[in-house]
Amino acid sequence: MIPGVKFGGIASGIKASGLDLGLVVFDQPTYVTALYTKNKVKAAHILYDKKVTNPVRAILANSGCANACTGPEGTRDLKVLSETLSGALHIEDGKVLFASTGVIGRRLPTETMAKAIPGLVKALKENQEESFARSIMTTDTYPKIVRETVPGKRPYTIVGIAKGSGMINPLLATMLVFIFTDYPVSPETIRKTLLEGARESFERISVDGECSTNDSVFLFTRQGPEDLGGLQAFRDKLFSVMKELSMMLVRDGEGATRVIHITVNGAKKEETAEKIARRIAISPLTKTAFFGCDPNWGRIIAAVGDSNVAVRPSSVEIILQGEVLARNGVEVLFDEEKVKKLMNKKEVDLIVNLGDGRASYDMYTTDLTFDYVKINASYRS
Amino acid sequence: MIPGVKFGGIASGIKASGLDLGLVVFDQPTYVTALYTKNKVKAAHILYDKKVTNPVRAILANSGCANACTGPEGTRDLKVLSETLSGALHIEDGKVLFASTGVIGRRLPTETMAKAIPGLVKALKENQEESFARSIMTTDTYPKIVRETVPGKRPYTIVGIAKGSGMINPLLATMLVFIFTDYPVSPETIRKTLLEGARESFERISVDGECSTNDSVFLFTRQGPEDLGGLQAFRDKLFSVMKELSMMLVRDGEGATRVIHITVNGAKKEETAEKIARRIAISPLTKTAFFGCDPNWGRIIAAVGDSNVAVRPSSVEIILQGEVLARNGVEVLFDEEKVKKLMNKKEVDLIVNLGDGRASYDMYTTDLTFDYVKINASYRS
Repeated sequence: MIPGVKFGGIASGIKASGLDLGLVVFDQPTYVTALYTKNKVKAAHILYDKKVTNPVRAILANSGCANACTGPEGTRDLKVLSETLSGALHIEDGKVLFASTGVIGRRLPTETMAKAIPGLVKALKENQEESFARSIMTTDTYPKIVRETVPGKRPYTIVGIAKGSGMINPLLATMLVFIFTDYPVSPETIRKTLLEGARESFERISVDGECSTNDSVFLFTRQGPEDLGGLQAFRDKLFSVMKELSMMLVRDGEGATRVIHITVNGAKKEETAEKIARRIAISPLTKTAFFGCDPNWGRIIAAVGDSNVAVRPSSVEIILQGEVLARNGVEVLFDEEKVKKLMNKKEVDLIVNLGDGRASYDMYTTDLTFDYVKINASYRS
Repeated sequence: MIPGVKFGGIASGIKASGLDLGLVVFDQPTYVTALYTKNKVKAAHILYDKKVTNPVRAILANSGCANACTGPEGTRDLKVLSETLSGALHIEDGKVLFASTGVIGRRLPTETMAKAIPGLVKALKENQEESFARSIMTTDTYPKIVRETVPGKRPYTIVGIAKGSGMINPLLATMLVFIFTDYPVSPETIRKTLLEGARESFERISVDGECSTNDSVFLFTRQGPEDLGGLQAFRDKLFSVMKELSMMLVRDGEGATRVIHITVNGAKKEETAEKIARRIAISPLTKTAFFGCDPNWGRIIAAVGDSNVAVRPSSVEIILQGEVLARNGVEVLFDEEKVKKLMNKKEVDLIVNLGDGRASYDMYTTDLTFDYVKINASYRS
């Protein structure tokens, strides 16, 4: 709970059933810092939000409709909703942000939403984070909330809320993330910090290599005299919230039965290690092998070789759950039954040593399962 | 049938059951032109074959073991087999090529194979292309052979044989391709022609975006005075054989229920159209939607936007089976039930018009199905 930050979530009728409209309102003018998808096709809410100037007063989020590829009408719909909401909140117009997730290509049902706004405003409470978190879920199987409270002379809280399950790939993932804090920090510091934090968290997860039109990370902070002494501690807590949210996202990856922690060591440059880790993370053959608990290291080394970077196959070592499967690029004797059992866990550790230098990169991906296909072959029906 | 080119295929015991060892022997010294995988991790047979000098006399191929990531031993195994086979065929040593497909990281069972060689040599016949084609199958569901005979003053034949089903992505696909002809053509001409042909065929298919360690295309031609007058006709026939083989590969894609023909038009440069087509071709969300007959054009435009090239979303048009789903980047009214039915076909046409120029690119991919996951979660067991 953050004093002066109220949450709400209701079933407005955008979806056939379930919560689908969420609202966060700030008693005080609040400073927002945001990161958006790198997809060239951007949802209307991103095009709109980019023009909203600080400070802001509220954010309205919905599931069930991405409001992407909706043309100028998609942006106009948001202007109409902004007016309605500003009126209901008695705030200056133009200070409301939007975030949407759901099917691409459909316009928002603005009348339905406008009708629901008075009820939503009434439902607002400081402790309703969960309703808000539930209102933005699509194929997510649970709401994703992380809270950190830092005691001390000047105590503060960080609350992070996210949604995302499929269409997840770094830079950014297909997700909406909202982080709130009452720690006072300057605009210059916060943007740099958010970028660094994203690089350590959301950019290190992948479910299916897809990049959505709606990805957004919003960080809401108080304006005020910066507490330089506490900045390092705040930074650490913020990164920890972001990292935990990103782990919640990848663990809830569509159809996933396990998370694979990929670490690539021994590269000449971190960039090389990253390219290889990302290539492994999107390899369907590797991901299906992890689903089947098959220690098929040949598929992993094939992905390494296909990473578009120089590698010396004869120096590659592959370690799965602590068991060495290959060294100097060739198989070593290992107990296949034992490794299969070790792979049958919620989280599996894969280490690839390149033997070429001292740089590393690590990230998380999921296995590729029947349920991923099931969920996505019938998502709209 | 090509006079003087004999084929054979037997069950040698590399696999638990089924044909697994194939041989092609040339009565005449024959000129080989080959293209190999761009994966940095290359199978032993590729490292070995690259050192064999023209002309050649035979090629020994096997399924059940990729002989990849087997270190110097993997290459030494081929030297031993070459000696045995050359002895059995009474030819000079060093004129035998190899091609392998199967599990990565396992060494060839050379003793088992050497014992089977005399029987394989005895089984050789000019009309045994099918035994050879069957001996190199892995998850393929049918043998892949294309024959073209060109009549005329100087008649000739082209026979193409391929294997490949999973780990298929252009440049090259995970496949082995063998093309034989008795048309006389010069080394300089044939290399250029083969590269051009591959660009129009094998490089335009994708099943799962994976690039194998063993991909190889071998073209065997006669040496002799070049018939310049017939060259264009030969080229056309050769390209037609390569194109047909590549269609057989993609149609037999692991678990695939349909083939999607992706055409990207209206690009400023062909390279841009190609990048977008390739991005769509590996998009799991697009591929699962095709499996589910879901005209979910939003996923297609999201892939377009994630292709790492400049696009103007507001000028994109998407046409599925002749039905316009989106124009100027937004949905147009279409009959969803009708389009679903139109998608329930073996081959589906997807056209993306960028409205930005006059360059095009087209290629083929498969849908992503339960069976792809099933096949690959349990491939080794």
